[in-house]
Amino acid sequence: MFKVRVYVSYKESVLDPQAEVIEGAMNRLNQGEVSQVKIGKFFDFNVKAETKEEAIKVAEAISDQLLANVNMESYQVELLEEN
Amino acid sequence: MFKVRVYVSYKESVLDPQAEVIEGAMNRLNQGEVSQVKIGKFFDFNVKAETKEEAIKVAEAISDQLLANVNMESYQVELLEEN
Repeated sequence: MFKVRVYVSYKESVLDPQAEVIEGAMNRLNQGEVSQVKIGKFFDFNVKAETKEEAIKVAEAISDQLLANVNMESYQVELLEEN
Repeated sequence: MFKVRVYVSYKESVLDPQAEVIEGAMNRLNQGEVSQVKIGKFFDFNVKAETKEEAIKVAEAISDQLLANVNMESYQVELLEEN
């Protein structure tokens, strides 16, 4: 069993108005100057697999088909733990 | 300038029906057996600060006041880069 994390976020070329709005709100808190805000989602899950490579392959297939809209988003798979 | 990442996700005690629905969909793809799905958001941003400690303090203050609903969510600040 492997625990993986998949990060999903907009591609650089995609404008993210939500990030701009949040950047404005963050700066209005006057806690410190903030810039280049980028927002994304992450999915943690366990994968039943024999090897790390197999676990990553399963995570990538699931990301391609379900977790990321590959037209606008990119994803990154990270292996968190082997348990 | 420091680049930080803030992870925000539901506290363990909070039921996340969306994660359960996605877990079902992931398993129906028949790519591999998946379990313990957890979903969260992450925010990447640059903070103008003199020291790492100051950058993390700013990020924590912004997380407390804006990025996380501290009643239901917990957050984690990670320092990505010093640039």
